[in-house]
Amino acid sequence: MGRSWWGWGTTEDALSSSEAEVLAANVGQLLPGADLTAHEPPDPRAIAVPASRVEAPVTLAHLCSDDHVDRLSHAHGQAFRDVVRALLGRFDHVPDLVVRPRSEADVAAVLDWCTDRGIAVVPFGGGTSVVGGVEPRFAHDAGVVSLDLREMSRVLEVDATSQAALIEAGALGPELEEQLRPYGYTLRFYPQSFEFSTLGGWIATRAGGHFATGPTHIDDLVESVRTVTPRGAMESRRLPGSGAGPSPDRLILGSEGALGVVTRAWMRIRERPRWRAAATVSFTDENAGVRAVRTIAQSGLQPANCRFLDAVEAAINAGASSAILVLGFESADHPLEPWMERAVEICRDHGGSLTEPPRYTDSADEVARSGASDAWRSAFLRMPYQRDALAARSMIVETFETACTWDRYDDLRAGVTAAAEEAMRSLGVPGVVTCRFTHVYPDGPAPYFGVYAAGTWGSTVEQWDEIKVAVGEAINRACGTITHHHAVGRDHRPWYDRQRPDLFAAALSGAKRELDPVGILNPGILLG
Amino acid sequence: MGRSWWGWGTTEDALSSSEAEVLAANVGQLLPGADLTAHEPPDPRAIAVPASRVEAPVTLAHLCSDDHVDRLSHAHGQAFRDVVRALLGRFDHVPDLVVRPRSEADVAAVLDWCTDRGIAVVPFGGGTSVVGGVEPRFAHDAGVVSLDLREMSRVLEVDATSQAALIEAGALGPELEEQLRPYGYTLRFYPQSFEFSTLGGWIATRAGGHFATGPTHIDDLVESVRTVTPRGAMESRRLPGSGAGPSPDRLILGSEGALGVVTRAWMRIRERPRWRAAATVSFTDENAGVRAVRTIAQSGLQPANCRFLDAVEAAINAGASSAILVLGFESADHPLEPWMERAVEICRDHGGSLTEPPRYTDSADEVARSGASDAWRSAFLRMPYQRDALAARSMIVETFETACTWDRYDDLRAGVTAAAEEAMRSLGVPGVVTCRFTHVYPDGPAPYFGVYAAGTWGSTVEQWDEIKVAVGEAINRACGTITHHHAVGRDHRPWYDRQRPDLFAAALSGAKRELDPVGILNPGILLG
Repeated sequence: MGRSWWGWGTTEDALSSSEAEVLAANVGQLLPGADLTAHEPPDPRAIAVPASRVEAPVTLAHLCSDDHVDRLSHAHGQAFRDVVRALLGRFDHVPDLVVRPRSEADVAAVLDWCTDRGIAVVPFGGGTSVVGGVEPRFAHDAGVVSLDLREMSRVLEVDATSQAALIEAGALGPELEEQLRPYGYTLRFYPQSFEFSTLGGWIATRAGGHFATGPTHIDDLVESVRTVTPRGAMESRRLPGSGAGPSPDRLILGSEGALGVVTRAWMRIRERPRWRAAATVSFTDENAGVRAVRTIAQSGLQPANCRFLDAVEAAINAGASSAILVLGFESADHPLEPWMERAVEICRDHGGSLTEPPRYTDSADEVARSGASDAWRSAFLRMPYQRDALAARSMIVETFETACTWDRYDDLRAGVTAAAEEAMRSLGVPGVVTCRFTHVYPDGPAPYFGVYAAGTWGSTVEQWDEIKVAVGEAINRACGTITHHHAVGRDHRPWYDRQRPDLFAAALSGAKRELDPVGILNPGILLG
Repeated sequence: MGRSWWGWGTTEDALSSSEAEVLAANVGQLLPGADLTAHEPPDPRAIAVPASRVEAPVTLAHLCSDDHVDRLSHAHGQAFRDVVRALLGRFDHVPDLVVRPRSEADVAAVLDWCTDRGIAVVPFGGGTSVVGGVEPRFAHDAGVVSLDLREMSRVLEVDATSQAALIEAGALGPELEEQLRPYGYTLRFYPQSFEFSTLGGWIATRAGGHFATGPTHIDDLVESVRTVTPRGAMESRRLPGSGAGPSPDRLILGSEGALGVVTRAWMRIRERPRWRAAATVSFTDENAGVRAVRTIAQSGLQPANCRFLDAVEAAINAGASSAILVLGFESADHPLEPWMERAVEICRDHGGSLTEPPRYTDSADEVARSGASDAWRSAFLRMPYQRDALAARSMIVETFETACTWDRYDDLRAGVTAAAEEAMRSLGVPGVVTCRFTHVYPDGPAPYFGVYAAGTWGSTVEQWDEIKVAVGEAINRACGTITHHHAVGRDHRPWYDRQRPDLFAAALSGAKRELDPVGILNPGILLG
């Protein structure tokens, strides 16, 4: 399968022209008057790219590529603004060389060479960053190397007793799952980017998995991690828990390539689930739905799925006519009726009604899904492809997400929605804002917003950037985090800098100076 | 109630002479021939202490004490070796001044003054460190201040919607629980030291709570934390979850006073449990019991209590004749029969048998406990007092704990037990080693060992130190952590230094230089 050089995923899975036409027609009904003329991506060979400033040393030449399209496809991530710029042939920052290490020794050799020459290194996993994390958007006279970890993708060891596996950082989601399957295990970590993002990328960005409650961030699944820095390798001990000083792993988690290159990690895995329970509950009163979700989040029931979609989101992506809660439990150990029954009872207490009776299955192969949840899941995985098709039709289609404590949620939701709507109004781009919860905690939800607006071809990047500033400010005013699971990258720096304590940044600088004394690692990320 | 100046807790709750006699008689049966003569603590006023090298500035004088007994009681923690040295009148390192700030401004003023003068500052919460964390065991010509946070003990705010509370760092367990009770909430964090240790101490040391599974370390309960450093205050945003860079809180968690002084934190609280389930399962085959516990830890059932006691531990502390598993569930939301029934089924699959049918209660006031678990719990809270009584009778009574992955547990258990027994043999001190699990994770247990040996009066500190070296080496060989929840302090440094990655220490040094440029904070802790 061929990865798209400019957009999401594979060219085979992109929307067909007829699918795209249906989608465009639907959008046309939602936003009458939108100019939905399709624009084709340019010929990448015709795009001018500065000559590479970096020559690979002989010893590393076999790992290096200065191929034109290779450089282009490492010049951006997969944010809306990245995809549109690619469609427009705008490649503002192209790495000089793509380097594909095959071993940790290769990684160390590359870092040594780059440290010597002062060449910047941007670690690159699956390239699905939606925050400018892999785009070398900085001036660096000595040149920039994109360090692509994809050649290191093996599951090296499985410890069935402890339910843990040692996995190389460059493994994509499906690659590591395929290697775990013969043992009967699974990582069960399914971000939307699952097919195209890597373990190392998840760790470096503190990615969020598909479990809606409980241990769900990749942080919780890391047992130990190995990182190569310009000063050498650093590896924590495999431990189920520890109280010995600040956690070394937690310094690397979220470091976004600024402190070192994650090369492998021991990950907590689990048996494949046998029992599943699924239900969809609709709420005519969205606020009551939010209270139901909060009660479930504080109940200790820990549903695997607890996605709450507002009415607009539910209409667009699940064909529902009111807000819905997609509830699911799963277990490799026990049937789930008592769990689901109590969760449904909580929903009923808050005015929710089941769209159909909960479905229970107890086979490892059969998947229990209710109609609405099934529709929503399919849409979930297809969303980035739809995004690309709409982006090529002048639509502004982007998401952003946050987390806040429950007491602030109503204000945050109202403030963010108003800010996005006001920004769209003042830009003259008609559109809608949707909201769902991707994850919920006892002390707060992680709201995930979608923007669908009819932009102006050639200006949609700038139009989105204005909307993004408005919602970033609104999130910051409401004391949410600028990102719950999309990382900081370059796009979130202005708000990250206001969110994190100044003295923490000072401490992090001190740490970085020790690990990356010349400052070659992902310049502009988190610091500086 | 009067805190003991030399030993555990309050003088009122110490063992009476008759209780101590009964205990000594029991121990005499276990270890025939032991010299159990009782030794009395010295008169603290008669203990020579170096003159204070530090004079409080006028502006801070009202917070400072150079009282003789005050200084002595801040010169040690509550490890066995601390208590025995106190009994012997050995105070090797006494702080020059005890300072009791009443506000964060006071803390900042003290740090400013100490930074100016180069005076060392040892943060002091409840003083229950069992690892030398509060003992100023270092040379520091400019003198040492013990910064006692106990005056700052208020619950400042309760957010009932998000189930979180803002609590000052100097609050003891009972103090914060009393303040939360009127709201119907509880932190439900019960380390053995609960009555005498503080929130700030728990955070600084990554303390472990009483939940045996799931979110149980204090790390998991911290929503945001505020820390005063010599460079100023640092406060993270209140967030239920975030992916914005490495977690600022996780740098402070476990920093043991080396990076700053925790002054307050937003903590995740919960409703008081209404439903409880309790059962005790006995296992004639201890290895089968371990497998049952592992299966439960990996089942997703998350019992609140899942303490596994080996046969010796069960005999001494629960009057049982074989290894037992003390199982408990609790919930504020739902009855617990399905949870307990499945856990018991797992135990039966591994050859366990219930000592009596599981007990279920559904009142907030009534507590469900089986006989054995009740006996064990009482013993648990009384243990430190018994330890003191036995320490005064030449007994070596101490615990140490670790965590490891399940695949390494058998080797770790055997290696540690053999090392302790060999050390006792070569010292000529007859004794026993016990083991229980205090916490279990899907990927491994946290084994907690006890040593009870008949030592030689006047030499028990040195005898224990030799045993400790032997077991520390054995833990390190088996790749366990040198501490799961007792912190590093000064006693665990040799093994901590081998456990944590060298480059992480370098990074931490870099961070410390930024926050504590003069290096006044708890010298010798974690670094240097």
